[in-house]
Amino acid sequence: MPVSSFFCGENEMAEKPERESMFEEIARNVREKQPLVHCITNYVTVNDVANILLACGGSPIMADDVQEAAEITSICDALCINIGTLNTNTIAAMKTAGIRARELGHLIVLDPVGAGASSLRTNTAIDLMESLHPDIVRGNLSEIRALARQADHTRGVDASLEDRVTRDNLEQIAAFVSEFAAQNHCVAAVTGAIDLVSDGTQCFAIENGDPFMSKVTGTGCQLSALCAAYGAANPDHLCQAAAAAVCLMGAAGQRAKKNLAPCQGNASYRTGIIDAVCLMQLEDLEREALYELF
Amino acid sequence: MPVSSFFCGENEMAEKPERESMFEEIARNVREKQPLVHCITNYVTVNDVANILLACGGSPIMADDVQEAAEITSICDALCINIGTLNTNTIAAMKTAGIRARELGHLIVLDPVGAGASSLRTNTAIDLMESLHPDIVRGNLSEIRALARQADHTRGVDASLEDRVTRDNLEQIAAFVSEFAAQNHCVAAVTGAIDLVSDGTQCFAIENGDPFMSKVTGTGCQLSALCAAYGAANPDHLCQAAAAAVCLMGAAGQRAKKNLAPCQGNASYRTGIIDAVCLMQLEDLEREALYELF
Amino acid sequence: MPVSSFFCGENEMAEKPERESMFEEIARNVREKQPLVHCITNYVTVNDVANILLACGGSPIMADDVQEAAEITSICDALCINIGTLNTNTIAAMKTAGIRARELGHLIVLDPVGAGASSLRTNTAIDLMESLHPDIVRGNLSEIRALARQADHTRGVDASLEDRVTRDNLEQIAAFVSEFAAQNHCVAAVTGAIDLVSDGTQCFAIENGDPFMSKVTGTGCQLSALCAAYGAANPDHLCQAAAAAVCLMGAAGQRAKKNLAPCQGNASYRTGIIDAVCLMQLEDLEREALYELF
Repeated sequence: MPVSSFFCGENEMAEKPERESMFEEIARNVREKQPLVHCITNYVTVNDVANILLACGGSPIMADDVQEAAEITSICDALCINIGTLNTNTIAAMKTAGIRARELGHLIVLDPVGAGASSLRTNTAIDLMESLHPDIVRGNLSEIRALARQADHTRGVDASLEDRVTRDNLEQIAAFVSEFAAQNHCVAAVTGAIDLVSDGTQCFAIENGDPFMSKVTGTGCQLSALCAAYGAANPDHLCQAAAAAVCLMGAAGQRAKKNLAPCQGNASYRTGIIDAVCLMQLEDLEREALYELF
Repeated sequence: MPVSSFFCGENEMAEKPERESMFEEIARNVREKQPLVHCITNYVTVNDVANILLACGGSPIMADDVQEAAEITSICDALCINIGTLNTNTIAAMKTAGIRARELGHLIVLDPVGAGASSLRTNTAIDLMESLHPDIVRGNLSEIRALARQADHTRGVDASLEDRVTRDNLEQIAAFVSEFAAQNHCVAAVTGAIDLVSDGTQCFAIENGDPFMSKVTGTGCQLSALCAAYGAANPDHLCQAAAAAVCLMGAAGQRAKKNLAPCQGNASYRTGIIDAVCLMQLEDLEREALYELF
Repeated sequence: MPVSSFFCGENEMAEKPERESMFEEIARNVREKQPLVHCITNYVTVNDVANILLACGGSPIMADDVQEAAEITSICDALCINIGTLNTNTIAAMKTAGIRARELGHLIVLDPVGAGASSLRTNTAIDLMESLHPDIVRGNLSEIRALARQADHTRGVDASLEDRVTRDNLEQIAAFVSEFAAQNHCVAAVTGAIDLVSDGTQCFAIENGDPFMSKVTGTGCQLSALCAAYGAANPDHLCQAAAAAVCLMGAAGQRAKKNLAPCQGNASYRTGIIDAVCLMQLEDLEREALYELF
């Protein structure tokens, strides 16, 4: 992957026209197709995941029992697997649903929450990668490193300090993310201070978002669900769809931050982010997206 | 069931005096008796279910392990069973708790979330109907059709398009709902654009609510819990109690919609609906209720 | 324990200087050390628990499967066990994680939600007390009485009427709480209209809080998590740390109550309490704390 111009104003200008139509079209497809997303997800953030799917124009269904997981997935448009509070029962459901989704050609998103923090999480995430070949993998850098069997850096469910993406290490990390995507034949969406989305060929570096988002639990889980809805509605443009979802989440975080009143903290911010996704106009997403494609 | 006058202003006027005292009395009973509702409910919307029970004047307790389900139910006033994220363990708890609640004469509400979407859900819901004989069944039309073993129309957890209740098909669907209620010796509360509540003899057609409520996950689950609190506090007027709960939820949705600021979306709306239930005055409920009894 | 001066202005004034530095220091330690708290907690209030941990400066991780519970706990600073929706699987995880936490010298907080309401809860809570020797036990008076094997007073998950702490029975109940703490070698944080926090030697009687907090589900669960973060960051001052957490939660409830707009009810209040914790300045906590030490 040639890494040439990061955040170079001229290139950005040159690409603007094509970009504008792309994200707007991607977001419109979500609202028109209203993809039904089967979520096998953690119980910590599940309500926000459901509401953000509704906010973006999709529709959620949660079902994590192995007896119905495959059947439920078959009536859906995408499957979003999140291992945030995995257990023996739900792991079986993830596999069963994933195999059916694969057979039916449905989009699969994997969110390897906390991979690296325990053997169960790391092994389950790697097993799901190998058996299901998810189309989009969304995690922080520590989690993606754990999937790549690199040294374990995870601090709980947050990326470790050495896994912070900055302007200084951006090229190096972009190369890692692109290689991960290429090797796994997936779109990798790695989120942090700067987000990277790559399918192994192209790589989006996205600077939307606000540091205060780290004070709200589940913004990553919500983003994974958005990736599922956006990907399902745009099957021929998965990398752009994931990038659009990442920009949407970040732009919503920025808008909601601006709207916070002085007496409002992280709980109001939680609400405000989903509100902002709900109210985002199709043309706004492109205008507010802050990314470089390289 | 004679279906004569739908939304006919004159009849409505004639019935007003009786109606006013009824809903106010029903709501007052909830606040005075503070019914304790045992919820075996899905983990997606459980927090909202708990908070709306507190908002209306009831009190929640959640317990879904088979080892304690019957004992917990025995200290409660009602049992609300919601199959939104059912699994093998919780199904056993539902049955155990339900059998004990039945023995003790406690009110049982069944919310057959997603019945029709998987065999597990359909079969479990039908089994719970047959073994527990719930007093109130609250669902969308697709779910109730699945319980009636009619053609499967469910699209995930939402009613399918052909199951939308409109003015055009209201008579036909009211007849179905009333027959379902009569055959199952229960109150059926079927919610949609127009809500229908029937005990097989009388039928309320209710037009409270706002389309934006469909963008908030769990308004149905919350309503089922309200039905449990309202029914438990008004055991001799179950049909009216369920109708009052349906009107309350819809009126709260209307109030909260009016209160939304321009930068507020579905997540603020979620909060606003529960707030509106919390702040609803006893006399307001009757005044804001929009229904026809036929 | 000598119980001498309750809420006596003079003593309070005399102690002020020492108090001020103490709570401010305790709260600063939380923000600086950012303790990672492993929560095995109920699914009703889990999202609020996670967000209030972030609000206070800590960090949450939820993991309740027995296969990973011990490993997850080993990378954390504290373990918060809440039996609100316990089941066979999570009880095993609680024990496994607790034993490991004990081995590693990590702080353990136990919240015996609903102890007294079912044999499973009472027995599990007593078993966890005996096998794990938690450092802090946070519950209402009915729950703590159940742990002390006194008559069962619990009404669901709320304290029974006869277990309301008032000025009239304060001395008697403080003596009970102190004895419970002494016998169990723990800090007991018993919350109600007046909160009592004791390590068996000293006892804080705290009057922060607002009655409207009882209309929000999970304020107790959230407080238990705050106790875990505050205790983990202040291991040499556990009683003061728990008292500071209780004052923080109550002061946040008071602030949020004042900030409520006329159209806001218990759901907005839920959000406002976490917001207030997020925005509480270090010096504010001491200033707004309303307690007597005796």
